[in-house]
Amino acid sequence: VLLNDAADRLCVVLVAARNPLNIGAAARAIGNFGFSRLRVVNPYKVPFREARSAVGASGVLLKAAEFNDVADAIADCNLVIGTTALQHRNPQHPTKRLEEGVRLIRRLPSSSKVALLFGSEKIGLTNQDLSHCHWLIRIPTQEKHPSMNLGQAVAICLYELVRNSRIPIAARQPDLASSAETERLTEMLLQALVISGYMNSAPATSMKMKVRRLVKRLHLPPDDIDTWLGMIRQFSWKMSQVEK
Amino acid sequence: VLLNDAADRLCVVLVAARNPLNIGAAARAIGNFGFSRLRVVNPYKVPFREARSAVGASGVLLKAAEFNDVADAIADCNLVIGTTALQHRNPQHPTKRLEEGVRLIRRLPSSSKVALLFGSEKIGLTNQDLSHCHWLIRIPTQEKHPSMNLGQAVAICLYELVRNSRIPIAARQPDLASSAETERLTEMLLQALVISGYMNSAPATSMKMKVRRLVKRLHLPPDDIDTWLGMIRQFSWKMSQVEK
Repeated sequence: VLLNDAADRLCVVLVAARNPLNIGAAARAIGNFGFSRLRVVNPYKVPFREARSAVGASGVLLKAAEFNDVADAIADCNLVIGTTALQHRNPQHPTKRLEEGVRLIRRLPSSSKVALLFGSEKIGLTNQDLSHCHWLIRIPTQEKHPSMNLGQAVAICLYELVRNSRIPIAARQPDLASSAETERLTEMLLQALVISGYMNSAPATSMKMKVRRLVKRLHLPPDDIDTWLGMIRQFSWKMSQVEK
Repeated sequence: VLLNDAADRLCVVLVAARNPLNIGAAARAIGNFGFSRLRVVNPYKVPFREARSAVGASGVLLKAAEFNDVADAIADCNLVIGTTALQHRNPQHPTKRLEEGVRLIRRLPSSSKVALLFGSEKIGLTNQDLSHCHWLIRIPTQEKHPSMNLGQAVAICLYELVRNSRIPIAARQPDLASSAETERLTEMLLQALVISGYMNSAPATSMKMKVRRLVKRLHLPPDDIDTWLGMIRQFSWKMSQVEK
């Protein structure tokens, strides 16, 4: 896991991004995942500093460094990684899946500085930009729909850097009844609870929600739903005989 | 790995999203990662069908189903998972990290339909929305900057579903009520079933076993046992008034 103190070694470099909203969204993702360094290479002088899409990460935007070309932006970095939506067959651009690329980043010495380059919304990184990269990473999108939104692509790359690859898992999950079926049971149980005097004749919404959650937590298998419905129905019928 | 034919089992449900650009961005991520089903629960009638942010995924937007409430949107789903930026300490909302939650989704039977719920940009999912969820997943954002952009959050969840992961080894069982406690509930349920006339006054052993298994399959959390005991006890008391 890339720890917080190591997160300072990585900078996100946006090359020729045109939409300030995307630059703000990239800053937001940088803040979300504990990174802080944003660099913008932009000949167009996009007014991104105030982008509202940064939300809680306006500090990242304010601190962002501006450069006129890629070479300057990555001058202090040891490893430069480009991002691409394409399967580059060209051996000049060795391309790894994001998961594999991040594994390599994690194994770097703690002194290494890493630049992660993202190209413009329309065309991505140019061949000129790519020439600065050691290798490329590709987010595993569908071949039919490879091109991602810039802010989403930045978020996914940073998420992969902080995600835990060794989370324990629970045992095999059984199949569950549909929500429509569990809702029927919730309704029938509420009805029975009212008839029994367990709750008021007009239970508050909060009480209904409480009962719904109680039923959801049962994780009812599909085959049991009818049995429970039948039992609660019988209870209600029997209880309704009291008044007669 | 959730394969393409299985991707049809998962739908993304956006509850009360206000910004059409975010709905379009969610559609784009759905297309990027090979999913197709988008459902929108929206009282505001947001004009999202033409959102340009969908880019290559306008088909996903056009096919998106609209619902007036969450219950309808998830009626056919077996497992309903909410998303949250918060660490819910409340046991009413069991929260798993995204990585762990996705492993559970991957282990579901292939017939299971899964709904992944995302709340509005401002407030996320309400308590009413959450009551429809079996459990919640949390993207591992920083505690200081937990709240993600909606389109980015959708993209990361879907990416996690398609990313490469090894077959998990360690298994962790959820906490369950003790056998003694479930047995008490079994006894009390049997008693209620007899009083109600649902079964004979001297149920056969095979019937008792059937009811015990039924209760076991509930996988009751320890904190819920007392609630169920209280409800069934109340039903029995009410039904016993009939003879008087």
